[in-house]
Amino acid sequence: MSHPVSPLAPRSHPEMPPVAGVSIATGAAGIKYKGRTDVLTMTFAPGTAVAGVLTTSKCPSAPVDHCRASLPGGRARALVVNSGNANAFTGRKGLAATQTTAAAAAEAVGCAPSEVFLASTGVIGEPLDAARITPLLAGLFAQGEGGRWREAADAIMTTDTYAKVATRSVRLGETEVRLNGIAKGAGMIAPDMATMLSFLATDAAIEPAVLQALLAEAVGPTFNSVTVDSDTSTSDTLLLFATGAAGNAPVTETGDARLAPFREALGAVLLDLARQVARDGEGARKEIVVTVEGAVDDRSAKRVALSIANSPLVKTAVAGEDANWGRVVMAVGKAGEPAERDRLAISFGDVRVAVDGERDPAYSEAEASAAMKRDEIAIRVELGMGTGRWTVYTCDLTKEYVAINGDYRS
Amino acid sequence: MSHPVSPLAPRSHPEMPPVAGVSIATGAAGIKYKGRTDVLTMTFAPGTAVAGVLTTSKCPSAPVDHCRASLPGGRARALVVNSGNANAFTGRKGLAATQTTAAAAAEAVGCAPSEVFLASTGVIGEPLDAARITPLLAGLFAQGEGGRWREAADAIMTTDTYAKVATRSVRLGETEVRLNGIAKGAGMIAPDMATMLSFLATDAAIEPAVLQALLAEAVGPTFNSVTVDSDTSTSDTLLLFATGAAGNAPVTETGDARLAPFREALGAVLLDLARQVARDGEGARKEIVVTVEGAVDDRSAKRVALSIANSPLVKTAVAGEDANWGRVVMAVGKAGEPAERDRLAISFGDVRVAVDGERDPAYSEAEASAAMKRDEIAIRVELGMGTGRWTVYTCDLTKEYVAINGDYRS
Repeated sequence: MSHPVSPLAPRSHPEMPPVAGVSIATGAAGIKYKGRTDVLTMTFAPGTAVAGVLTTSKCPSAPVDHCRASLPGGRARALVVNSGNANAFTGRKGLAATQTTAAAAAEAVGCAPSEVFLASTGVIGEPLDAARITPLLAGLFAQGEGGRWREAADAIMTTDTYAKVATRSVRLGETEVRLNGIAKGAGMIAPDMATMLSFLATDAAIEPAVLQALLAEAVGPTFNSVTVDSDTSTSDTLLLFATGAAGNAPVTETGDARLAPFREALGAVLLDLARQVARDGEGARKEIVVTVEGAVDDRSAKRVALSIANSPLVKTAVAGEDANWGRVVMAVGKAGEPAERDRLAISFGDVRVAVDGERDPAYSEAEASAAMKRDEIAIRVELGMGTGRWTVYTCDLTKEYVAINGDYRS
Repeated sequence: MSHPVSPLAPRSHPEMPPVAGVSIATGAAGIKYKGRTDVLTMTFAPGTAVAGVLTTSKCPSAPVDHCRASLPGGRARALVVNSGNANAFTGRKGLAATQTTAAAAAEAVGCAPSEVFLASTGVIGEPLDAARITPLLAGLFAQGEGGRWREAADAIMTTDTYAKVATRSVRLGETEVRLNGIAKGAGMIAPDMATMLSFLATDAAIEPAVLQALLAEAVGPTFNSVTVDSDTSTSDTLLLFATGAAGNAPVTETGDARLAPFREALGAVLLDLARQVARDGEGARKEIVVTVEGAVDDRSAKRVALSIANSPLVKTAVAGEDANWGRVVMAVGKAGEPAERDRLAISFGDVRVAVDGERDPAYSEAEASAAMKRDEIAIRVELGMGTGRWTVYTCDLTKEYVAINGDYRS
């Protein structure tokens, strides 16, 4: 099954430079797909710190359980990811598959199994045959290279129509450090987490506790503000590795003044990847950027924005290029957050369509229609209740979404 | 715009007998539709009690505001409903339209405006021109007849593909009483309320406070357990009128032993109408009945059931006749309610597909596929946490839903 590349795909991918201390390889285990790679391995220099954010699902996959148990150790030497099978809801077999894979990787790399991080994405409920992956590991680890970020992004795709990569370089004190990231995800995307899978690595030296704090802070307005279909995966995994190979004096406190540019770069890479996920939403033809302002607080603004972004009626209206602000009113109303009908203002792009609880007297149907023809639809809602503000990223809901998800297993 | 009748439409409509004390008329005001009726009026005998449940939206329509203000009076003499325009988010014009309509109806019937109940359904945000409706009212009230329930149901349809009616007769003490109901709704359907519009009338004599208690109790497992697209309307209105014309000694207490059969009939009529709404969900090809058992309590069971019923991935899988229980696991996991992956059991129809946290060893793909070909798909989830139980009704998500909602205004 393949689908045409999203019209919202980036025009070009950035050149992905190596990150010192990270070695990458990909292979074809034939787990589900034929004629493509489906296994990704990374090895990290000794002493690499790791931070992570995992799905909040009450039914997490076996690899998520493994990562959750390993993260407190704060150190990583290897990453093994497969696509085609999520190893989720696979019971004792699922646990056994993660144990087997982690043990094989640990032996090949020479580390503890808890320093091996795992992720799987694909069909839920089918046992994952670890014996397809483990024989490849020693070879993959041996042949790893630093520059294969794009191949890495290719290997973890499922219904994605394009690979998702991002990179930044910034100063950390006197040292130039690099931050690379990849992501996959196209459906079953909703906060917390909206990833499905994303892996970032930097050569900066940052202690695990600081790394975790930075990641937790950065994920809120980025991956946790993306939704495709309100469905939260059992497998969502975001991991950030810091090898320390850049040689900066290690960052040991979140208040370290040197961190400012890195913080900004981390937010930028995560937002870049998160928006690429939204723009590759299954069947997406338009990106929708929903900004709610004037809420009683940011949390309330986010809830209203998600109510709009997850509304099938709003999403189908955008698909139909219909400036149907009545459905935005509906979505504000159902959010359950403080709102006053008669203070609401709504804009599509630059066109204010409603103000003070009714249609904007200056509203032009022609201008609104023109705004709806763009690839990026900005919906702005002013609640008039306070200063809370949030932006959420999503896509439209098209017949292709239904087609893709109506025959996924066949 | 018209769409083919839902394949889930009832094979036949019940004969709708009159309800003593209720007179019905319909007319064509040309509000939006051409060549069909779009106004419904009912008049009620003096002394008629009324109860109601209204949308929880923070941005309710003007007629909802009117009903909310009038319900505490507990008495009704007239109902005026229009389709084609929801009179929602219409600001001062919307309020004026309800005042004008209620005043005109009150004058024609000879009652207070607060004894006139109003409802509107259709496009949001367009001013409703009351002058299209008011000139018709005196004539409609004058020509009303008792038996026009089916015509009433026709007049309030919007994207509905069939009229929704139900009727029951039961004993109230020594007296035979009748309960009729109509509903409309096909999209923007989610609890609280999942109606869009529903109107019931009985000739029983029941005091307003008792009537309200009965209705509030009955709505939970019926209209508030139906969802099409998780989108809650600004206009949801459920009204129950009791004319008292049957002549029973009035019911003045909820504990009245005579009420048992009436309670049951009320629940049955509401469930009948609610399921008709789900089965007419925009683009629906299959009804999905989600039952969650073994939750920590009923409330928790309902939340898990709604998480499943509102999941686009579950709904598209059913559309594709795919017994994709992995997506059910996902929806259980994201509900945020107490659940243990390794205690979960899931069935489609009579086929148990998963048990104890993994695929049922006895699972037969052929049997599961056969179960998915039916018109009614029963999804049962056993959580194994307690004795809480709830059933929710919804429909599949098809390309037709997207088509219907992508060009609603055009």
